[in-house]
Amino acid sequence: MTGTDDLLYHVDGDVVPAAEATVNVRDRGFMYGDAAFETMRAYGGEVFRWDAHADRLRGTCETLGLDHGLTDADLESRIDETLAANDLADASVKLSISRGVQPGKLDPDPAVDPTVVVYVSPLPRGGTAPEAEPVPDAPAALQTVRPQRVPDRAIPADAKTHNYLNGILARLELRSSDADEAMLRAAEGYVAEGATSNLFLVDDGGLRTPSLEGPVLPGITRDTVLDLAAEEGIPVEEGRMTPADVRDADEVFLTNSTWEIRPVATVDGVDVTPGDVTPGDATHEGADRDAGPLTTLLSRLYARRVERLHY
Amino acid sequence: MTGTDDLLYHVDGDVVPAAEATVNVRDRGFMYGDAAFETMRAYGGEVFRWDAHADRLRGTCETLGLDHGLTDADLESRIDETLAANDLADASVKLSISRGVQPGKLDPDPAVDPTVVVYVSPLPRGGTAPEAEPVPDAPAALQTVRPQRVPDRAIPADAKTHNYLNGILARLELRSSDADEAMLRAAEGYVAEGATSNLFLVDDGGLRTPSLEGPVLPGITRDTVLDLAAEEGIPVEEGRMTPADVRDADEVFLTNSTWEIRPVATVDGVDVTPGDVTPGDATHEGADRDAGPLTTLLSRLYARRVERLHY
Repeated sequence: MTGTDDLLYHVDGDVVPAAEATVNVRDRGFMYGDAAFETMRAYGGEVFRWDAHADRLRGTCETLGLDHGLTDADLESRIDETLAANDLADASVKLSISRGVQPGKLDPDPAVDPTVVVYVSPLPRGGTAPEAEPVPDAPAALQTVRPQRVPDRAIPADAKTHNYLNGILARLELRSSDADEAMLRAAEGYVAEGATSNLFLVDDGGLRTPSLEGPVLPGITRDTVLDLAAEEGIPVEEGRMTPADVRDADEVFLTNSTWEIRPVATVDGVDVTPGDVTPGDATHEGADRDAGPLTTLLSRLYARRVERLHY
Repeated sequence: MTGTDDLLYHVDGDVVPAAEATVNVRDRGFMYGDAAFETMRAYGGEVFRWDAHADRLRGTCETLGLDHGLTDADLESRIDETLAANDLADASVKLSISRGVQPGKLDPDPAVDPTVVVYVSPLPRGGTAPEAEPVPDAPAALQTVRPQRVPDRAIPADAKTHNYLNGILARLELRSSDADEAMLRAAEGYVAEGATSNLFLVDDGGLRTPSLEGPVLPGITRDTVLDLAAEEGIPVEEGRMTPADVRDADEVFLTNSTWEIRPVATVDGVDVTPGDVTPGDATHEGADRDAGPLTTLLSRLYARRVERLHY
């Protein structure tokens, strides 16, 4: 937790020390996980693909029937204020909007006084993560887990909400293993996604990734990778795949806004790297060196796009 | 919200005014709904079936891998202190235990500094509910909804957690209808449960209720009703049923700790009462009068048990 208490968060319009950043216990975000969120990265003081995050957040709020009444510009300015207050240019940023406090029943009231929170944490570009947010740049060890991905019909996967127990139960299964990301499957047994990441594999020089019917979160980084692949003329198949397909792939990588593109070293204990990568021992340069050729190419294209947009 | 701010809650060992009862925004209860809870009723100053609630809470915490380190006696004394501080004998009581604040990643740390909250709200026995907690004693209007009950394989139904969006999405569908409780089905189309209640129907003088494979929450009130039925020699079938079975039943009722036994007036707009009950217009006595004979019998047996144990 070193350093976290020195950070300033944005809560309901005020910049406050993290230790004093609170919500009422009657807040529906606490009582029910009744809240929408986005995790983003700021590079050079600006959020990467803010418009895409704002769009997805709007979709989540529509799914939740949560009319918070705030404009994208208002939300963006709260993020900017938080980054400025912390004197941060390169950071991990989380924006949460809960339905706030309402009368004590489960039915959401259409009249909403939302709780808006902006969390930030320093995250140097391409560097190692701060102690409080141990984001491994080392290649991932992926493990198939028993918990099934919550189906779209129960809670739509394109809603990014504070109901995160499905992913937490998946990660709990990794306690007794060396793995650090869980591979969740849909009811039919096909691969859906990681607990906090989308999954890609490389086969015959092309990319494969579970389609949005997965069910999977429509990741912004996933979308950026699809865009980079299209620009580069790399064939992409969005479809179904089994854990065996993933274990047998030429390369495997994970994506999310924090990790960007993270190579996978092992799947269910099976080595899936071209080199002799051991999870947990690589530096960023090491990860880059030991990742497969297409993973390395996409990582460089991604870094170049960040560079072009923000520096 | 009248009155709620005058209440005292119990947060992490301290009795505090509800308005000042807060958790940090980094609390995993707020960020992920990573918390266990129980909703109970106190009659004459004591929690009804505390041992059963404590058992279920322990089971939820085991599922979540949440070792909070507190004894049942400690938790019970916090409830007692909260009731005493509010000078309440008859009340609705909610006990929540979250995993608290941990370093900023999804993986739960085995070392837990839990957040323990006790909420109370006055709820006179057999009377009408306070404004802040509008519990309808009137017969329910039940409506089949599209959201599917989260399957056991994604999040076990016997874990009572702060991940409540499935039920909230179900209740959201009722906004455009006169119904006030949602009937959720499992993937196969069979009836599982209400958003906050278990469901029973009466056919040929016997009770039928979805089995625990539903998936359904193993309700304490459900269990009490099964016990009362066994004592009274009423046949009970725990199994599968379709929405059509519910619409065609002789009587239908819902159970939870707050409602106890609540008759259902309509299912998908179809009248399922013996009399001419209109949802929303009945007093407790009215509900009792207009409920079917077996529902009425069980309500009286339930009230007698409460009387015997607590008054």
